[in-house]
Amino acid sequence: MADRLVARILPGVCQKQAGTEDVMRGEETQLLGLSALRPGFSGLVVLPGTHSKWALLSGSRLERFGTAMTGELYEVLSTHSVLRHSLAGNIDPAERDAGFEQGLAMGLDAPDGLAARLFKVRSAALLSGRSAGWCAGLLSGLLIGSEIGAFRGWIGEAPVPLIGGPGLSALYAQGLAAIGAQSEIIEAERATLAGLKAART
Amino acid sequence: MADRLVARILPGVCQKQAGTEDVMRGEETQLLGLSALRPGFSGLVVLPGTHSKWALLSGSRLERFGTAMTGELYEVLSTHSVLRHSLAGNIDPAERDAGFEQGLAMGLDAPDGLAARLFKVRSAALLSGRSAGWCAGLLSGLLIGSEIGAFRGWIGEAPVPLIGGPGLSALYAQGLAAIGAQSEIIEAERATLAGLKAART
Repeated sequence: MADRLVARILPGVCQKQAGTEDVMRGEETQLLGLSALRPGFSGLVVLPGTHSKWALLSGSRLERFGTAMTGELYEVLSTHSVLRHSLAGNIDPAERDAGFEQGLAMGLDAPDGLAARLFKVRSAALLSGRSAGWCAGLLSGLLIGSEIGAFRGWIGEAPVPLIGGPGLSALYAQGLAAIGAQSEIIEAERATLAGLKAART
Repeated sequence: MADRLVARILPGVCQKQAGTEDVMRGEETQLLGLSALRPGFSGLVVLPGTHSKWALLSGSRLERFGTAMTGELYEVLSTHSVLRHSLAGNIDPAERDAGFEQGLAMGLDAPDGLAARLFKVRSAALLSGRSAGWCAGLLSGLLIGSEIGAFRGWIGEAPVPLIGGPGLSALYAQGLAAIGAQSEIIEAERATLAGLKAART
């Protein structure tokens, strides 16, 4: 039986041009999957996650990509920084949505202010009695808004494929919509399977 | 003897105007100290630290302030994020200085790219074989450069007093110099003592 299994490992991708050094390991398979699901697709693809990837595709060719540590920033700040005090407690979904909307607007409005605005999460709890849910939404919105703002120049006219889990992708779709960009959510698993199939052939 | 001791607690400061909510606890004493050490001083004062404060003073009046979580971001990212792998090992001071200079330029050049540039620390180690010292400098430079870039509009013509420890203050002085701004380092302890004296009278 073992003779029937042939294991192959797909390599990651690195971008070595000075000033743009970056790596991806796994997302390239999803991008290959996208080019199989949407033959001839050209333009921006966003893969939200721990280390979000922004990629410019031209068919099955990867022209350029960049990484934002947004998911990990949320994780370390909410677990290890002083902001954790403002995020502890019951998370009310409606409150979180309201906080997210405000954070998103702040992040998109002034992505250069990220360093200066993270502390607003703490101030909002201390001075305005904001709930844990609201503060969690604010932090998430600030980070995602700043990420989208930082890559704004990469966004074109075409709807942006978002490859990722449905919950996180929906937040990015909301962020893109806030600046007038359309998007289309593609389940990560579907893109991965399509990419593995394409790699085999 | 106890009758001779009169303990007093100095309150912190909060800024409650919508959109600018912020708090400081301790730095207000150093700012009061500065206004005692430099009677009539008006303008920007920067207090680098875990939560850096940027304050606009007009004599002993605090007009406005903001907080950047730069020191804490460095701490949580270097301890808990994937970047820690690139910072582990011997820190060579010359390498760190070189990395700092590059990070500073990147942060000042595009403070809106902070979210997108933090991962460069990892890429620099993986793709260019950068040392732990260089990567530590890059991270520090990126964060401080982005902070200065975010508050650039607050910087005037006068030399900026930097109240803090000498090592960290020197990095901020280097960052300010890179955009043509002068600064003057004032030892935190000296400002604190002057502030406590001023508060007593």
